[in-house]
Amino acid sequence: MGTTQLESVPEPKYWHLKTVLSEALDSDFAVGEVLPNERELAARFGVARATLRQALEQLELEGRLQRRRGVGTTVAPPRMGVAVGAETDVWPGAGDDAWQPVACEETTPPAAVARLLDTDPDEQVHTVRRSRMTHGQPVAAELLYVPAGSVPGLTAIGAPTGAAHARAVLRELQRLELEGQDRAVELGSASAEDAKQLDRLPGAPVLVLTTRYVAEGRTAAVAVATYRADTCRLTFGETGSVQITDAGEDRRAS
Amino acid sequence: MGTTQLESVPEPKYWHLKTVLSEALDSDFAVGEVLPNERELAARFGVARATLRQALEQLELEGRLQRRRGVGTTVAPPRMGVAVGAETDVWPGAGDDAWQPVACEETTPPAAVARLLDTDPDEQVHTVRRSRMTHGQPVAAELLYVPAGSVPGLTAIGAPTGAAHARAVLRELQRLELEGQDRAVELGSASAEDAKQLDRLPGAPVLVLTTRYVAEGRTAAVAVATYRADTCRLTFGETGSVQITDAGEDRRAS
Repeated sequence: MGTTQLESVPEPKYWHLKTVLSEALDSDFAVGEVLPNERELAARFGVARATLRQALEQLELEGRLQRRRGVGTTVAPPRMGVAVGAETDVWPGAGDDAWQPVACEETTPPAAVARLLDTDPDEQVHTVRRSRMTHGQPVAAELLYVPAGSVPGLTAIGAPTGAAHARAVLRELQRLELEGQDRAVELGSASAEDAKQLDRLPGAPVLVLTTRYVAEGRTAAVAVATYRADTCRLTFGETGSVQITDAGEDRRAS
Repeated sequence: MGTTQLESVPEPKYWHLKTVLSEALDSDFAVGEVLPNERELAARFGVARATLRQALEQLELEGRLQRRRGVGTTVAPPRMGVAVGAETDVWPGAGDDAWQPVACEETTPPAAVARLLDTDPDEQVHTVRRSRMTHGQPVAAELLYVPAGSVPGLTAIGAPTGAAHARAVLRELQRLELEGQDRAVELGSASAEDAKQLDRLPGAPVLVLTTRYVAEGRTAAVAVATYRADTCRLTFGETGSVQITDAGEDRRAS
């Protein structure tokens, strides 16, 4: 959040450059504008290319710059606040229109997920892939793992494929009484499939939100959602009236 | 969370290498062990140095590897779950022993914080720096911004400096009735001062948790906490009994 008077540690060169560049972004560039190439920028600020590159990487990490294939480095719009803390616990697909089911397959979940679900390491579970759009932009990709035991009525209904099957799994899941959920956020990198869904390069930093849904005293489902770290700020509001406004808006709006 | 059968996109070379390396970390290395240097590793896996470096960067982003000054690249322990979602709203310093006040000064908060606090852009506020330790390791650094209006009794008490002053500000703040709080998580990079507190290099990726405390119908204080993204997973549990266990433990424990 910038320097304060508490700052007493000598800053590395690129960090100082980052601050200078950040101010230049505010004053000389508009959101979406393409930055001059690295050689020009290095000359303009009188620094080595390596120093410049470090500063640009920091600004990308902080969501101020975006690097896009075939476009170059552009000034990023302010991060969007994406609400992830529901006021009341609800099942995926119930009362939340932000997510769209994309596909559903039987997969062997990652070992960590299997452990949360208490399924055998090689047991296949229903895996619903969903996509979250905000303002027409993809912001998150999710894999929801549902063991067969959580949706006992599903086989009787039949097993179509794709989005239709995904909706059938969600409907069956909603028959259970949701007792609670907990969430964890950590830093990750986008897999090839997630990257495609999020319109990013594989390996791009993402915020990974793991949600565990509890019903009948056990974990009924686990969702692993990856949010674009460059454009998203995850908000956990506790009351409908209290909402953190965009902390970067005044600084970054053109 | 690894590849699944949903994976249908061709993966870049470094991504495949990352998967291979990740398996090698599980089978051939112990937590804390120093990795061979880049030249040796590139030869061992038959890849170019640039490809290797990309794969190592991904693994660092995912918390599997740590790069430390004067030590080299080591195998990281599993990430710690750090609880940030209190069951009930409490003021900083009240009923939460994980945080230690370090210092307090008058500073001009960043523009975004001033806007949340509704203070003038150049108005100085009490700025309490706190540190959070878990298992003897620093996991987070925090700046808590408290406008003079939120602690009207403070001047009467006097203004000592440092940790004592910090505690006095927290005590005064606790006199207000806390009406609610909301939080937002986003990706950031460590400032020089934060990096020093967190035992990291400046610019290291951090999870930035902004908390807004509401009292008397307005924002009484704003806390900006930076958590080490390499070692921490922020958990938002809703019930005391429901807790996400360490999702990486079985995979990474030696």
